[in-house]
Amino acid sequence: MTKTIQTAVVGVTGYAGAELARLLLHHPRLKGRPPVFAGRVDAKDQARGGVPLTEIHPQLADNNGSAELKLEPFSWELLAERSAEVLFLATPHEQSREWVPEALKRGLRVIDLSAAWRLTEPANRAVYAFADEATELAASTQARAVYGMPELHRKRIASAQLVANPGCYATSIILALKPLVAAGLVDLEHGIVADAKSGVSGAGKLPSARTHFMYAADNLSAYSVFAHRHTGEILEEIGVSGCQIVFTPHLLPIPRGILSTIYVHFTKAQTHESVARVYREFFAGSPMVRLYEKTLPQIQYSVRTNYADIGFQLDAGGKRAVIISCLDNLLKGAAGQAVQNLNVMQGWPESEGLA
Amino acid sequence: MTKTIQTAVVGVTGYAGAELARLLLHHPRLKGRPPVFAGRVDAKDQARGGVPLTEIHPQLADNNGSAELKLEPFSWELLAERSAEVLFLATPHEQSREWVPEALKRGLRVIDLSAAWRLTEPANRAVYAFADEATELAASTQARAVYGMPELHRKRIASAQLVANPGCYATSIILALKPLVAAGLVDLEHGIVADAKSGVSGAGKLPSARTHFMYAADNLSAYSVFAHRHTGEILEEIGVSGCQIVFTPHLLPIPRGILSTIYVHFTKAQTHESVARVYREFFAGSPMVRLYEKTLPQIQYSVRTNYADIGFQLDAGGKRAVIISCLDNLLKGAAGQAVQNLNVMQGWPESEGLA
Amino acid sequence: MTKTIQTAVVGVTGYAGAELARLLLHHPRLKGRPPVFAGRVDAKDQARGGVPLTEIHPQLADNNGSAELKLEPFSWELLAERSAEVLFLATPHEQSREWVPEALKRGLRVIDLSAAWRLTEPANRAVYAFADEATELAASTQARAVYGMPELHRKRIASAQLVANPGCYATSIILALKPLVAAGLVDLEHGIVADAKSGVSGAGKLPSARTHFMYAADNLSAYSVFAHRHTGEILEEIGVSGCQIVFTPHLLPIPRGILSTIYVHFTKAQTHESVARVYREFFAGSPMVRLYEKTLPQIQYSVRTNYADIGFQLDAGGKRAVIISCLDNLLKGAAGQAVQNLNVMQGWPESEGLA
Amino acid sequence: MTKTIQTAVVGVTGYAGAELARLLLHHPRLKGRPPVFAGRVDAKDQARGGVPLTEIHPQLADNNGSAELKLEPFSWELLAERSAEVLFLATPHEQSREWVPEALKRGLRVIDLSAAWRLTEPANRAVYAFADEATELAASTQARAVYGMPELHRKRIASAQLVANPGCYATSIILALKPLVAAGLVDLEHGIVADAKSGVSGAGKLPSARTHFMYAADNLSAYSVFAHRHTGEILEEIGVSGCQIVFTPHLLPIPRGILSTIYVHFTKAQTHESVARVYREFFAGSPMVRLYEKTLPQIQYSVRTNYADIGFQLDAGGKRAVIISCLDNLLKGAAGQAVQNLNVMQGWPESEGLA
Repeated sequence: MTKTIQTAVVGVTGYAGAELARLLLHHPRLKGRPPVFAGRVDAKDQARGGVPLTEIHPQLADNNGSAELKLEPFSWELLAERSAEVLFLATPHEQSREWVPEALKRGLRVIDLSAAWRLTEPANRAVYAFADEATELAASTQARAVYGMPELHRKRIASAQLVANPGCYATSIILALKPLVAAGLVDLEHGIVADAKSGVSGAGKLPSARTHFMYAADNLSAYSVFAHRHTGEILEEIGVSGCQIVFTPHLLPIPRGILSTIYVHFTKAQTHESVARVYREFFAGSPMVRLYEKTLPQIQYSVRTNYADIGFQLDAGGKRAVIISCLDNLLKGAAGQAVQNLNVMQGWPESEGLA
Repeated sequence: MTKTIQTAVVGVTGYAGAELARLLLHHPRLKGRPPVFAGRVDAKDQARGGVPLTEIHPQLADNNGSAELKLEPFSWELLAERSAEVLFLATPHEQSREWVPEALKRGLRVIDLSAAWRLTEPANRAVYAFADEATELAASTQARAVYGMPELHRKRIASAQLVANPGCYATSIILALKPLVAAGLVDLEHGIVADAKSGVSGAGKLPSARTHFMYAADNLSAYSVFAHRHTGEILEEIGVSGCQIVFTPHLLPIPRGILSTIYVHFTKAQTHESVARVYREFFAGSPMVRLYEKTLPQIQYSVRTNYADIGFQLDAGGKRAVIISCLDNLLKGAAGQAVQNLNVMQGWPESEGLA
Repeated sequence: MTKTIQTAVVGVTGYAGAELARLLLHHPRLKGRPPVFAGRVDAKDQARGGVPLTEIHPQLADNNGSAELKLEPFSWELLAERSAEVLFLATPHEQSREWVPEALKRGLRVIDLSAAWRLTEPANRAVYAFADEATELAASTQARAVYGMPELHRKRIASAQLVANPGCYATSIILALKPLVAAGLVDLEHGIVADAKSGVSGAGKLPSARTHFMYAADNLSAYSVFAHRHTGEILEEIGVSGCQIVFTPHLLPIPRGILSTIYVHFTKAQTHESVARVYREFFAGSPMVRLYEKTLPQIQYSVRTNYADIGFQLDAGGKRAVIISCLDNLLKGAAGQAVQNLNVMQGWPESEGLA
Repeated sequence: MTKTIQTAVVGVTGYAGAELARLLLHHPRLKGRPPVFAGRVDAKDQARGGVPLTEIHPQLADNNGSAELKLEPFSWELLAERSAEVLFLATPHEQSREWVPEALKRGLRVIDLSAAWRLTEPANRAVYAFADEATELAASTQARAVYGMPELHRKRIASAQLVANPGCYATSIILALKPLVAAGLVDLEHGIVADAKSGVSGAGKLPSARTHFMYAADNLSAYSVFAHRHTGEILEEIGVSGCQIVFTPHLLPIPRGILSTIYVHFTKAQTHESVARVYREFFAGSPMVRLYEKTLPQIQYSVRTNYADIGFQLDAGGKRAVIISCLDNLLKGAAGQAVQNLNVMQGWPESEGLA
């Protein structure tokens, strides 16, 4: 068995952070080595050595020592003292922009769950308006980043110093489209439609008018039409232009899960088998993708798993397809994919700790 | 004030039937003249003169006489005795196929909420496999039917003997697309996508695996891909071919409401105002459509109203639009539209009793 | 028909305010006389004469003039100019404490939806820590207040200048218990348990950790155990001591509705009929209470109505009962009861505009 | 490490069966030895050697061999051939009554999730009306049964041949009350109230009017008032009479989880610490109970875990307490407790495979 490592997590207070903590605490390769949880801690809590993790996330309480775990005041010294080797950042974009260069300088390998380093094209990054956009440090850091989708970039992730963990919507749409586009099946001039629906955890933990139960419950709403930030990732990774795809997110009245309904025209008529073969070949060796050949996936099937579920149906003529792509936005769409990247980086089995 | 009339309802036990009962019981033009509720009643209940309506739908109980209302054993004689003039059928398709010709023969005006008489083209009706498809009676009955969407066929409905009340998905999609297609704005060769999502009441009252709380809750699933029965209505009323539009329904984890997200390409670049003008002109004089010009509608806004809510957004170049169309599947998508048709048939204000 | 009046509403932005607006806009006695909606309006909105009501509550939009309605900057002069006669306050407690004396001085009749003037006993008011508690003005104002539950205080409400509209939990529990306690059926020494469950709208519109969808959905939690503010109303109106009743509220994962499960011991054995008779007699002449004699009420039956639904079941020996009491916390528990009080104050039929 | 064993499961098609399958497939002591899944299989499926488990429960699909698992036609011979040692029955009560004696005769150890063998007192069993009630075989089988709640009967379970796995409501209420009653703290003459609320999975997988999404969603309803079948277990295990406790179940609009709110009077005044100490001592050595000393548990904390969560609050005088008890009805309330019993029977750590 490969040796274990010491991990650290900054940003454990959010929903993805909670899932990340849970996964790392139960990861078979990290037994007995809980992550260092570090972050902003107020004076009163500093006095008691940090905030017990189970105060922040009561659902993490168990009778096996979780009561001892604490969110400690962040400092680079803390990470050094504890010999942290891999740092997970589940922090706001701006904070990742600031901290990642320092972390790399200190020799840490970083898995960043924010959007800070996902985008290669300055035009696609513009929507984030990063303050350090023009600096050389940012450019050289970006150059070292690998987009953390193992199904597309497994080899580069294995040796990466900085992994930019993908967005949840982007993961759902890229995995469904990349195999078909790469195989030349899709008539891009006809235009692709990606109609995506996400549970409320995707909107984050901060209470707001949109995350109020009374807004989200018994409702469905479209938002960020023609303007969602994940669009850049989709364009770069699939290799299409903004004229060739429309992506519309919707807020579902459920806690978690994404279902994307994707519409494509083929360049020439296909059969169910010819399309299935393309997916099968693309995802050979990808343990975290499940191809549905007889039915269509539903949100429930993938929620609380790290699987991306893909199914599809052709019209009678074989010229059009509807593709259904489901995943859990907090797992394959965030914390689970981050752990999958850790596994790839460490040379561990890709699905280790994710079953 | 125009004189009142006597209505009758067959099929009050379902969800649309309950809404229809509620609307007719509170309709200002029908004060003091509750509908005759008729249907299948077992022997035990026949002995007590029918089933109290409030046993079937406890939420219809009030302290104003609703306790007296009964579901009575159906017979044509019962309707004649009570001088019923307008008959609402919220019955299975097959039953409407059988009963409507008889009702017309007896001089009743009929508003049929089933799909029995909605479709002109035999090819579009094929999916229902009606047993009487080849009969002359069916052909002559179909010839008298008017598709009951007042926004499209107000004049013909006013004098119709048989109104075929539209499907819920169909209403949502037709109202959003008809104005733009009729005005020649839409590039049909590019293909239209209608991604529609409906609450569970659309699946009917019969308990089934799909309507089980455990299936529907915390879930989203696509169904009837390339194969939903409402497709024929959409094709006939908008005037497009099956190759020019894809319609995918989804089951939402909410009791009621439909949101359709519709994707079109324009033949030439439009502005927000040019598109809004087309809608405004088309829906001038249509009190039950609300155009959203500054925001997008959401399911919550239209649920428990008879409004169809329409909003849209253009991409930067003005060549593509995403249209959002919302309604309550039991009201504008069923019982409410039926009452709207009654109003049109009687010459009453179109939104009477629907506010 | 009694003459109409001019109403005014302060506090229309919350959930109860929205329901109040809806009820008053459709009230048959107030046709053509929409309420004056007044409140805090920022400078930018003042410049445009206030905020359109449909911007605050899109679901209030209709095609019958609602677009003209505005939330205007509050001033006593505005109310005077518009000849307001009855003022509804759906404001925070402290604001009602401050404004009600002024409103009474100006001759307005007030229906206050806050808890400001509900409680007679200083000890019960202590939990609110009103700043003006010790003043003579507060004492004399309190002396003029009538607890606005028509089923208990119909006559006094009819002539009241100040009606203190009850709390939602309190309404649910008082209506279920008062008839039995008043008739001497309940063994108070044994102790009453009121286990109450409410939808999230009861927690208000302000986004908070507790009203976040992720907190409330798929969850149930007890809160304010032995300490909820509505306890004082329950004690005063039923006439029991704090040792004789326990009341525990819970947060339900639904938008609206309250169900209280209430446990009593009888002083001597009862039958279903003897208990039903007590309720029937107490609520004779109370159109907004529905007694369930064959089944038990459920939350769904009363939601979106102004009814309080009461049902009960006895144990085999007739010495214990479980009472189920349901209502819509925004209607019979707030805005609906306020309109019911308006009806009583004006001598209109008590259920007018509430069907 | 203790040797592994071969398990078998009958009744995998329901919700508890699915959880049981999941737990056994991932149990560290059962690696490489999946359970035999046996049950009723129709002719067509027999021809293909049974029904793939992932057709029945798509969420059990993974990329680690789950595709090979099948529900096979049940026969005693099948169990013998596969050398099954422990048999889990997640079957209807009547079927367990019939099969358990045969299984014991064949030397199998049985963990029965039904209510067939939970009750010692014939009066308490009467509600089930077992056909074999009067037989000697039933009596001798019952005599061998141990009520499968490790926190109460750990030692007897360890050596039991037949473990009667407790009901979900019963587990929730017994664990909360037994420590206090056993310690003599509770004034039984005052009467205990247990107001319990359960998610819809507790109502089973069979589609019915009550499990229809439209019935359960946005609703809350009490049922089986003074008449729920779990009452007998509560009486027998806590040691109280039917006059001393009332238990009312409610149907919550959530998929899973139970919260019981329990009201007790103490014989003499207690402090928070004195009560906590009683619980701590009782549950020392019970890894699957979590005591909440600073906050109250909520349904979300225990859902998808095997923990029973218990918290409580005293009134000011220390004479009354409200106890909150939460668990997942499919895990600690069914399949999880069954695996916990397996662990106890095998001498494995009690929480093995349940973290």
